[in-house]
Amino acid sequence: MPPQKPLTGEAALITALSQIFGPAPAKVAVGIGDDCAALDLAGPDYLLWTVDTLIEGVHFDLAYFSLPQLGRKALAVNLSDIAAMGGEPLYALLSLGWPPDRDSAGALALGEGLAQIAREYGVAVIGGDTVASPPGLMVTLSLLGRVDRGEMLQRRGALIGDQIYVTGPLGEAAAGLEVLKRRLTLEPDLQEALCQAHLDPRPQLRAGRVLAGQKLAGALIDLSDGVATDLGHICRASGVGARIPAAAVPVSPQVLAAAPILGRHPLDLALKGGEDYQLLFTSPKEQAPALFQAFQKAGLPPPLPLGEIIAGAGVLLAAPGGEKEITGEGFDHFRLDL
Amino acid sequence: MPPQKPLTGEAALITALSQIFGPAPAKVAVGIGDDCAALDLAGPDYLLWTVDTLIEGVHFDLAYFSLPQLGRKALAVNLSDIAAMGGEPLYALLSLGWPPDRDSAGALALGEGLAQIAREYGVAVIGGDTVASPPGLMVTLSLLGRVDRGEMLQRRGALIGDQIYVTGPLGEAAAGLEVLKRRLTLEPDLQEALCQAHLDPRPQLRAGRVLAGQKLAGALIDLSDGVATDLGHICRASGVGARIPAAAVPVSPQVLAAAPILGRHPLDLALKGGEDYQLLFTSPKEQAPALFQAFQKAGLPPPLPLGEIIAGAGVLLAAPGGEKEITGEGFDHFRLDL
Repeated sequence: MPPQKPLTGEAALITALSQIFGPAPAKVAVGIGDDCAALDLAGPDYLLWTVDTLIEGVHFDLAYFSLPQLGRKALAVNLSDIAAMGGEPLYALLSLGWPPDRDSAGALALGEGLAQIAREYGVAVIGGDTVASPPGLMVTLSLLGRVDRGEMLQRRGALIGDQIYVTGPLGEAAAGLEVLKRRLTLEPDLQEALCQAHLDPRPQLRAGRVLAGQKLAGALIDLSDGVATDLGHICRASGVGARIPAAAVPVSPQVLAAAPILGRHPLDLALKGGEDYQLLFTSPKEQAPALFQAFQKAGLPPPLPLGEIIAGAGVLLAAPGGEKEITGEGFDHFRLDL
Repeated sequence: MPPQKPLTGEAALITALSQIFGPAPAKVAVGIGDDCAALDLAGPDYLLWTVDTLIEGVHFDLAYFSLPQLGRKALAVNLSDIAAMGGEPLYALLSLGWPPDRDSAGALALGEGLAQIAREYGVAVIGGDTVASPPGLMVTLSLLGRVDRGEMLQRRGALIGDQIYVTGPLGEAAAGLEVLKRRLTLEPDLQEALCQAHLDPRPQLRAGRVLAGQKLAGALIDLSDGVATDLGHICRASGVGARIPAAAVPVSPQVLAAAPILGRHPLDLALKGGEDYQLLFTSPKEQAPALFQAFQKAGLPPPLPLGEIIAGAGVLLAAPGGEKEITGEGFDHFRLDL
């Protein structure tokens, strides 16, 4: 056996597993290493396919999540992966691990929340399985979607000189999580906005479709692990670097208001906090007028500039005092542990 | 809100959830309530889709499972669901919950076992996710497959007078689980056969293809929860009953040998024990010659007659002293709890 390299995080584990599983067959347009797998089933579309698991005590705490909220979020994080390929969601399977000592009416409450968001996004929940899970609640959603084969967007595709945008202000979900975990009480509107960002994220499917259908983006990803990590994925997949002027980061006004109370630097929440589930994408500068017009026409808020794709590698944060690389210090589930 | 009916088991939970999720759209050929969902994507095939989760302490114990064995079994139980529709497996996504305090080399060992069985059955593992799971190891596989739309077999389709068959002898996996849990030592060949049946089940994909491709079966299911439960699913889906002569039950010779040592009735292990992952199917009596010939030609052991489809409902076990209904006393994960 070759010597085992120490794994320093989730990315290393996924890389090692992908080597074990070997290269994908020809009909697999996108395999391991993007937001979804994409299959070429010989029709006009690619079939998009993703799976995500939420585990009690890791991804959520029922001290502040209601069961319908949890059902919503379990689908939302998968919908965001479909959005990150420019696709449309179609069908879902639910795999539910329910602690046998808890009232099963709760499983139905979770199902009600899931059914509600499924209807909102036109998804049919068509099967799955249920198992007893004594150590805690576990929700896995597997989701299928579609995208025209000429329209699919991936993490690769960023070009030097491209502008980097996000579809909404940053840091709210991370600030909300702090508020919830520390049981803080802020001014009601502020409290509500931040907590809802964590509890009930809105996957940006319409923005993804506008970018894909009108060919307005080069590379696309959703912000699940934070800008530093997720923009880092785009840089690696595209063979480029990124430069973010600190003064230009679109920190959410609510995050600016809450940061002193939380004792956190707003940029830390905005760039390293996870779970905003906004889309981050690159687009040639000369396409900016078409981009803003397309978003306006679709009734979407204007995309927010974040920085620029440059030659090199990694994500640089540029402040008056100089530049420094920021790395995957977002919410990497394995970071502290492996 | 309507009054909550008490849920008495997994079947009731799935029924309640399926009501919440509502009817499936027209392109869904098979929704909740069969071994796989089946999608009509306008090609010559149906796309088959399934998901199954194995949870530490519920479905396996690492005291007797090696990690490669666990990786194999996680895919095997999903492959069996594809076999139960008469289909061919194609692609898999892995969602792995790994306890952060354990050496991540174990996750790669699990991956090696998964990769090995995937190669054996021609499946490509093309994506997924990894999460920290402090309470214990959790493996979810989601699997896509295909079946010609004219060939797909379901739980419904059993007709009165049909013969019921299984593709192999019954009870080995349940007996093996007893041996493993109680750390018994039997005669080495016996020990090996029973334990392997639990640790490394062989999904009956070739038998499923023979039945589907040559239209030799009416209804088809895989034996994950035991004959009583799974034949009960066929009866409910087909609107019929079933009659099993006790003397005709194809109990595994190894189970007959081990039952006295285990202190269990062989029929209990054969009919109510779960996880044999053999196929159970119905076939018109006049097709028996064609059926046995097809299995022989395919190099498969002959199917074993188990009983007969009758008018009525439920599964009757017929012994010299009379008949009694046997119900879902197999390994129903929720049975004792909800």
